[in-house]
Amino acid sequence: MNDNNSIINQGLRGVTVASTKISDVDGRIGKLIYRGYQVRDLAEQTSFEEVAHLLLFEKLPDKNELENFTLRLKKEREIPCEIIEALKTRPVDSLPMDILQAGISMIANHDHTLENNSLDGCIKRAISLIAKIPVIIAAWDRIRNKKDIVPPLSQLGQAANFLYMLKGEIPDEEVEHFFDVSLVLHAEHSFNASTFVARGVASTRAHMYAAIAAAVGSLSGELHGGANVRVMEMLKRIKSIDKVEDYIKGELDAGRVIFGLGHAVYKTDDPRALILAPMSQIMGKKTGEPKWYDISQQLEKKAKQVFKQQKGMDIYLNVDFYSASLYYSMGIAMDLFTPVFAVARSAGWTAHVLEEQFAGAASKPVLYRPASEYIGSYCGPEECTFIPIAER
Amino acid sequence: MNDNNSIINQGLRGVTVASTKISDVDGRIGKLIYRGYQVRDLAEQTSFEEVAHLLLFEKLPDKNELENFTLRLKKEREIPCEIIEALKTRPVDSLPMDILQAGISMIANHDHTLENNSLDGCIKRAISLIAKIPVIIAAWDRIRNKKDIVPPLSQLGQAANFLYMLKGEIPDEEVEHFFDVSLVLHAEHSFNASTFVARGVASTRAHMYAAIAAAVGSLSGELHGGANVRVMEMLKRIKSIDKVEDYIKGELDAGRVIFGLGHAVYKTDDPRALILAPMSQIMGKKTGEPKWYDISQQLEKKAKQVFKQQKGMDIYLNVDFYSASLYYSMGIAMDLFTPVFAVARSAGWTAHVLEEQFAGAASKPVLYRPASEYIGSYCGPEECTFIPIAER
Repeated sequence: MNDNNSIINQGLRGVTVASTKISDVDGRIGKLIYRGYQVRDLAEQTSFEEVAHLLLFEKLPDKNELENFTLRLKKEREIPCEIIEALKTRPVDSLPMDILQAGISMIANHDHTLENNSLDGCIKRAISLIAKIPVIIAAWDRIRNKKDIVPPLSQLGQAANFLYMLKGEIPDEEVEHFFDVSLVLHAEHSFNASTFVARGVASTRAHMYAAIAAAVGSLSGELHGGANVRVMEMLKRIKSIDKVEDYIKGELDAGRVIFGLGHAVYKTDDPRALILAPMSQIMGKKTGEPKWYDISQQLEKKAKQVFKQQKGMDIYLNVDFYSASLYYSMGIAMDLFTPVFAVARSAGWTAHVLEEQFAGAASKPVLYRPASEYIGSYCGPEECTFIPIAER
Repeated sequence: MNDNNSIINQGLRGVTVASTKISDVDGRIGKLIYRGYQVRDLAEQTSFEEVAHLLLFEKLPDKNELENFTLRLKKEREIPCEIIEALKTRPVDSLPMDILQAGISMIANHDHTLENNSLDGCIKRAISLIAKIPVIIAAWDRIRNKKDIVPPLSQLGQAANFLYMLKGEIPDEEVEHFFDVSLVLHAEHSFNASTFVARGVASTRAHMYAAIAAAVGSLSGELHGGANVRVMEMLKRIKSIDKVEDYIKGELDAGRVIFGLGHAVYKTDDPRALILAPMSQIMGKKTGEPKWYDISQQLEKKAKQVFKQQKGMDIYLNVDFYSASLYYSMGIAMDLFTPVFAVARSAGWTAHVLEEQFAGAASKPVLYRPASEYIGSYCGPEECTFIPIAER
């Protein structure tokens, strides 16, 4: 026992748990780097496939490498029909993130190479997961809506194919591009809660599927990936732009938070939000429903003012603030927003599992085993005197 | 970026991440406490149900409380037939830990109270999981062996009922008692890798099922719960007591570890191993196959000598060393050893999730978000210059 509370690192804030070559976030200046590259450059000039290659193989692919990698991803899109059968046993109101978590564990059941723990074997599993996660999500959405499953289309890339499997229609080029940019922006973000959990599982030498299923569980929480759903629920509660100020006042008076504002790391606007916002605006106009962007923008402006005035503090956009209205205007069901986050983040998660198991500790992972401070039981700080049940 | 490698807390060893009232491990003197009580007292004089009550409700139950709690557990044993249907879609060679991980996510699909995040709602989920995890494991073992599923028997407690569902026969009292003691011994162990992962998932406000499914993934790793399987594989490779010394020499010469020896925390024999060893010995005699215990004992003795002589260091028993031969002599399939660990640890995991979400941070969990040290990319410590794909 230890009475010094100051040593407790709640939420592990500021505790450096590993060295990494995968990404760097400088929250003070709003800088996000994937393996040496600014996320803004990647968002503007690459595809999700290029970024997934960068994350897994530590370099941006040349044309040939990209072609090979894209082909590998496409070949891995098929999921065993037994998984579809299993999905069909699930209640239609199941949460998609729970379905995805089970689905990932089930993919492991069909991998007959699990004994192969080589780097190549694990990279193969990473590619399989990046390819299959969107397929499971889209299949589940079709099943629960009593629609026929749409098989993947081999000429389509990761972004377009997901929207196609979801809706049965090939998206236009602009929508495809916006979705692809969003996948790039969500692909990786250093030691966030879900990535840290994936690495924690990998540190026991558990396989890639076990680690990624765990990460999906973590992402489902409303303080993490679930926040983009909360943002959209909030926009729908606000309903129109003239209600924004009352809404902010009501939430702050009740001691609640404004979803999509504030972040554990950034002390300025999240660089990803600044790229998502104009896409949300264009999509709103395109679909004839600009109000979700308009409410968002007004909410951002007014909330920043109110926080400054009332609390004397600055509050900043996080990635979820404009992804909500963007996805909504793309016709993606609200409870698929977080699964879409997983479609993108699968690239970062799998890269981190590879680093944990192969690079960090030279193929000998160090089991995560933190300490804790025991503060006593209902008997107080001393041990309890054991009393058998007959005498209790 | 930071060049000071010394600040990295690899594996988080010695980093205090939270205060807890659940358990205390003093590895120097081999002491393990669950909520104020010595594990030795609990193993000798309580049942798994009493310990689960202690862990969840912070006190040992009196007779009435135990009766109510046991009844709640029994009522929660039934699993929806749709989950059985889903299990029947799974390939027979699926790893039981992967089946269990998916099974837990699937239990969430049938919980229509997920919106209820109160303490009571979460305790209900904890009891449901402690009750259903053994049912899923036993059902899967029956399904993969093409046997009829054995429904739970309401007069049996947690230990006897699990063995009954697995084999279709009620175990004798001694076997039931030994298995119950083993469940007590494995119920909780502070911030081990799987518990830490469960708390990490819970810190995002994800639900109990997502957290426990993640923990199952972590437990499956061979450096964690998977170690008891590795111990039994080792005993089978050794085959007979006279091969023990050669085996130790061969493994150490090859730079490999002896499974079941050494622990992240204990610097003396694990107190749980000292209770498991005599039970393993009695079970070996009872089944007419004493050799697994005999090999284990010889291995313990010789390995300790060799480590002392060759490396000048002491090496100590961990919990997996004698649980392997104990479970094997009970006729439990080797690949169910780690799932059996989960049957027990479900009590500790769920208690930790409750503490993370309700006690630690006063119903406002702090999202786990550690820092990492970015050590640069293939371009070196500086940023890469972005080159579009056409020019790469």
